Amino acid sequence: MLEFMHESSYGPKLRGLTNQERIAIAKISYELLEGCRGYFNHRDFMDVSPQVPRITKATGSCENLNTTFPLRFFDKPAYLAQTEQLYLETLIPFFKKVCCYGPSSRAEARVDARHICEFYLIEFEEAQESEGERLFDQLLADIQGVIQAMISRVFHTAKEDLGILGVNEGLLKLACEPFQRITYSEAIRQLDLPWCTDLKSADEERIVKSLGNRPVFVTHFPKEIKFFNMRDNETDPRVVNSADLILPYSGEAVGGAERESDYLKIRHKLLGSRMFAQLEQKGGGIDDFEYFLAGLRKRGGIPHAGCGIGFNRIVQYVCQLPDIRLTTWFPIYKGSIF
Amino acid sequence: MLEFMHESSYGPKLRGLTNQERIAIAKISYELLEGCRGYFNHRDFMDVSPQVPRITKATGSCENLNTTFPLRFFDKPAYLAQTEQLYLETLIPFFKKVCCYGPSSRAEARVDARHICEFYLIEFEEAQESEGERLFDQLLADIQGVIQAMISRVFHTAKEDLGILGVNEGLLKLACEPFQRITYSEAIRQLDLPWCTDLKSADEERIVKSLGNRPVFVTHFPKEIKFFNMRDNETDPRVVNSADLILPYSGEAVGGAERESDYLKIRHKLLGSRMFAQLEQKGGGIDDFEYFLAGLRKRGGIPHAGCGIGFNRIVQYVCQLPDIRLTTWFPIYKGSIF
Repeated sequence: MLEFMHESSYGPKLRGLTNQERIAIAKISYELLEGCRGYFNHRDFMDVSPQVPRITKATGSCENLNTTFPLRFFDKPAYLAQTEQLYLETLIPFFKKVCCYGPSSRAEARVDARHICEFYLIEFEEAQESEGERLFDQLLADIQGVIQAMISRVFHTAKEDLGILGVNEGLLKLACEPFQRITYSEAIRQLDLPWCTDLKSADEERIVKSLGNRPVFVTHFPKEIKFFNMRDNETDPRVVNSADLILPYSGEAVGGAERESDYLKIRHKLLGSRMFAQLEQKGGGIDDFEYFLAGLRKRGGIPHAGCGIGFNRIVQYVCQLPDIRLTTWFPIYKGSIF
Repeated sequence: MLEFMHESSYGPKLRGLTNQERIAIAKISYELLEGCRGYFNHRDFMDVSPQVPRITKATGSCENLNTTFPLRFFDKPAYLAQTEQLYLETLIPFFKKVCCYGPSSRAEARVDARHICEFYLIEFEEAQESEGERLFDQLLADIQGVIQAMISRVFHTAKEDLGILGVNEGLLKLACEPFQRITYSEAIRQLDLPWCTDLKSADEERIVKSLGNRPVFVTHFPKEIKFFNMRDNETDPRVVNSADLILPYSGEAVGGAERESDYLKIRHKLLGSRMFAQLEQKGGGIDDFEYFLAGLRKRGGIPHAGCGIGFNRIVQYVCQLPDIRLTTWFPIYKGSIF
């Protein structure tokens, strides 16, 4: 059913998959999930998937509300969640370390090798005793830890499936070494891009190749191009303590940050954000964030950080697939629902 | 935030929960999930949650399409999935035993103690070598097995949380014995109801009480009131090989059945179903089931059975809660989104 004819700089010419290959991808996905669960169990994260909502107010949107699917919830406007991060944040005072698994929906009309309108998203948030560099380092250690646990599990339990897909194991094993790290400032200097440019797929590919075709954290993005809940850096107020993990094949696969935990600061950031302007254009307002803000006002101030792991991009990377639509049995994109 | 004032025949007068109680419920939920995963691992079910779609055609609806949330998917009508069962069925030829976890959305405007518009649903389908009674017995054994594994895990790891909620452990321990079993015919005879009446909450409560306040399978429902994919009984053609599991406190918590696996028979059943008539009224048609039917035509004939486990109703039962809205941190119902 899936036949993709364009070329990728990473893979051979694309073609439809055999059933054997589709089964191998699904099995590797399963082992990746198991590896992820093992890491979260080991690190005492509590899975709160049944606690968090999928039909949401604008609180379930990421930074671009225009890519959130609208929905009629009886007499009220609602959305299909893109992220649970703000809900996870409200649970931090109660559980300290939480994670969840579930669908993330994105109304992206563009059809290409790196986007689908529905993907599986793994998210976690964790509290720490202190803010700043130590918390940020712990976040990066956990992102690296969970990705490595996932891949390590696949090497132990799905070797045969990697073989069926013809995966270059040497290339994949580079993920078992410490991840590379580069700041946004340094990245745009190397790419010769102006400040505040968001990185495109081709830019991500260049960075990854220049650092040896292995996972790379790009850190400390300008606050203007990131979600409102990220915490400003202590020494450079132009940037936030954020990190995107860029992978070969799939590009940006994880987006994480230290969160702002001060009620007044975050309210100010929310009201000044591009997403909030979009919400007001649609007739919405601060009421959409009532629950989130009330929680912070009452129990805020706990330093915490978290991230979202785009599971299908991990699968694409591990299976070395030229197109993200090959990562799931029922790929949803414009013109394709089942 | 949650304050319920009505009475239940099971519990004390309802009231809002303390934070300590809310945390205990979330922890018990987590342990129930872990118990479920343990059972599926032990029985070699593959978790295919990342494979199955949440934005669907009418294929994602249960028997009443009018309770499915509609959605605009670019230029096409779509729905928010209520169930993944037909997608899981198409995966049976490839994986034999599959399960998935995720949100189920129901547009139920009625607000009461047993319904929420979004709940967590666990589903599984399993292939067997032969159809009929043996397959049906295996299905019931697996439903009982997974529920008992969940509850047993809670007894081992969340005793303290049961104590915080004041759970009557003696009552809950009845779930560790073999589940009771009664046919639909026998149930309506006892309840003095006419044939083809669906059981209401009060009916379920009477059955459960008459059989000792423990889990009860009600089997072999009339085909007219069940989903089109259920297989007709061999000896009584009026009924299907279906089973609903009824629990104290929450009522119907699991719905399962042997599935029809013959392409022509199931196509005939689909076209004659009430759900299909609803779909045609909305301007839809057989195209919504194209993928499902194509899979059956090509690879059908494998005997299989499966079910959906309403996770929140399990939580309600285990925690002995008078209202299902207490089972989740963000209960979604008419007038309540976050």
